[in-house]
Amino acid sequence: MEKFEVNILGCGSALPTMRHQMTSQVVNLREKLFMIDCAEGTQLQMRRQNLSFSRLGHVFISHLHGDHCLGLTGMISTFSLLGRVAPLHIYSPGDDLERLLRPHLDFFCHGISFDVIFHSFSPCQSEVIYDDRTVSVRTLPLRHRMPCCGFLFSEKPTLPHIRREMIDFLKIPYYAINAIKSGAGWTDVDGREWKHEELVFAADAPRRYAYCSDTMPVDGNIPLLEDVDVLFHEATFSNDAASRAKETGHSTAAQAAEMAKKCHAKRLIIGHFSSRYPDETVLKDEASLIFPHVVLAKEGLKIEV
Amino acid sequence: MEKFEVNILGCGSALPTMRHQMTSQVVNLREKLFMIDCAEGTQLQMRRQNLSFSRLGHVFISHLHGDHCLGLTGMISTFSLLGRVAPLHIYSPGDDLERLLRPHLDFFCHGISFDVIFHSFSPCQSEVIYDDRTVSVRTLPLRHRMPCCGFLFSEKPTLPHIRREMIDFLKIPYYAINAIKSGAGWTDVDGREWKHEELVFAADAPRRYAYCSDTMPVDGNIPLLEDVDVLFHEATFSNDAASRAKETGHSTAAQAAEMAKKCHAKRLIIGHFSSRYPDETVLKDEASLIFPHVVLAKEGLKIEV
Repeated sequence: MEKFEVNILGCGSALPTMRHQMTSQVVNLREKLFMIDCAEGTQLQMRRQNLSFSRLGHVFISHLHGDHCLGLTGMISTFSLLGRVAPLHIYSPGDDLERLLRPHLDFFCHGISFDVIFHSFSPCQSEVIYDDRTVSVRTLPLRHRMPCCGFLFSEKPTLPHIRREMIDFLKIPYYAINAIKSGAGWTDVDGREWKHEELVFAADAPRRYAYCSDTMPVDGNIPLLEDVDVLFHEATFSNDAASRAKETGHSTAAQAAEMAKKCHAKRLIIGHFSSRYPDETVLKDEASLIFPHVVLAKEGLKIEV
Repeated sequence: MEKFEVNILGCGSALPTMRHQMTSQVVNLREKLFMIDCAEGTQLQMRRQNLSFSRLGHVFISHLHGDHCLGLTGMISTFSLLGRVAPLHIYSPGDDLERLLRPHLDFFCHGISFDVIFHSFSPCQSEVIYDDRTVSVRTLPLRHRMPCCGFLFSEKPTLPHIRREMIDFLKIPYYAINAIKSGAGWTDVDGREWKHEELVFAADAPRRYAYCSDTMPVDGNIPLLEDVDVLFHEATFSNDAASRAKETGHSTAAQAAEMAKKCHAKRLIIGHFSSRYPDETVLKDEASLIFPHVVLAKEGLKIEV
C-alpha cells in the first residue's frame, strides 16, 4: 500500500497547556506533505516529528482563529532562512488571511527566497480546491463562530498490482508491465491471449481522510463522508458541557461519535481538547459508547489511513 | 535580598532547533515580571517555567526580527481568553511594531478584555523608557542589521535593614520602624538620642542586569555597563566564524567576553546560539579564556542577579 498517513502535530484547543500544542496536522501522501492548520509552534513540531520542511508544498487553513494559523509567519520565515525555492501554497476561507499575513511576510521575511501563493475558497459550499495525480482535496463547510471549513483528502485510484508469477511464467518483458497495469492484456509466444484480469490483482481501494474542526456537528457533510476511512472530528468538550459546546461553536465527544456513526466511518480520531480535561479518557469513553473505533489524538501520533 | 532574577525562556537564534527555543527572557523583580523579546512559543515557555501571566505588565522588544517578536499575538490572545484586565505595555524601537501588530490584534483578539499599549523608543540613543519605585529600564543602542536596542535594568536603592536587636533593646514600637528605615533616629525613654546609623545595617547595593542582543560589540555602551552585576551578551558564533558574525551583525563568544571584561561585569551569560553548534561548550571555553565568570544560557535557567 502506498503511504497515506496523518501526523498529529497539535490537538489542544486555544489555551495552550503543558499537555497539548495548538492545532496542526500533516498528511503524508506518498511522501508529499500537506499541512492542515498551522498554530504557533508548528514549525518546531515538524522538527520534533521528523517531517521534512521541503516536502511540504500546500497548507490548508480551516479558519482564522489564532490557534489555527499564527504559526505561518514564523514557519515561512524559517523556510526562507533555509533557502527554500519551491513555492508554498496556502488555502483559506475568504481573503482575510492574505490581507493580514502579506504585510508581515513583507516585513519579517524580507528578501524571501520563494513565492507564497494564497488561494481563497468560499466557506459556504463544498468544492475541490486541490487536485493532482494522487489526491484531491475538497472543502467541507463547517459551523463555527466564524467562516470555517474542514477538508476531505481523497486518494486517486491506484493501478492494479501485477501478478509476479504470471510475469515470470509468461516471460513478459519489463517494458510491457506499465501497459498491463494500465489495462492491457498480453499475447504470449504461442499466440495465446491473456486477459488483463488474469495478469493483475485488483488495485487497493482508494482511501479518504476527513478533517472536521472547529465545528458543531454538520449533517450536510454526511453524504460526502459516507464510508470515509478515517474521520478526524473535534471533540472539545464532553457531554456535561454540551451547552458550552453549542455556545462556542464546538462539539462534544458524543456528537463526534454520532457523526462517525452516521457517516459509517471506519475509524474516528477525536481532538481539539479543551484545557479543562487533564485526562481525555472521559472523552474517549463517551465517544466509544456510540462508535466503537475511537482514537484519542496526541502529539506525535501517526495514523495510517 | 529582594528577588531579582532572570529566567531564560529561549536562547537559540533564528532557526529553531530541537535544543533551543527562540529568544525570550523574563526578569522577575520582586514578583513583578518584565519580558524581554517574545519569540514564537514564548507563552508556552512561560507555562513550562511557572511564570505567572498576570504578573507580566511590560514587554521590551529589542528589534523586529521574527525570532524576537512573533510570539506576541498568540500570547496576547491567550491573555484575553483568560480574561486579563490589566493593560499590557509593549516597548519597541520605532513605530513598525504597532503598525504591524495592531491589525492582527484587532482581528485575532477581537473583543480583547484589556488594553495593549505600544511605546516606541529611538534606537539611536540611550534613554530611560520605564521607571517605577523599584526599577528603571534604560535602552542600550546596539549594532545589528536593523534598528536594535538592548536593555539595562537598574534596581532602585533599597532601604537599609533594621538592626533587630536594637529595636528589641530600645523597645521601639512597630509604627516607628518605617521612619527609621527611611533615615530617622530615635529618642529613648531616658531622652538619649540614637542616630539612624546605630539602628540599621547598610542597604544592599542596588543591582543591575543588562541584555545585549542581537548585536556586534558596541563599545559606546561600556560607560553605562560599568560594574554591571550580570551581563547577557549574545554569542551567536565562535571565533572561527568571526567574519560570518560581522556579516550578519552578530558577535562571537570571544567578543562577548571582551565586552564583559571591558565593563568589569561581575558575571556574563552568553546566548542566542547559532544552530550550527550541537554543543555550546566550545563557545563557553572560548569566552572563558578572556573572562572567567561565564554561564551558558539554557531554557529554564534562572539566574539570581
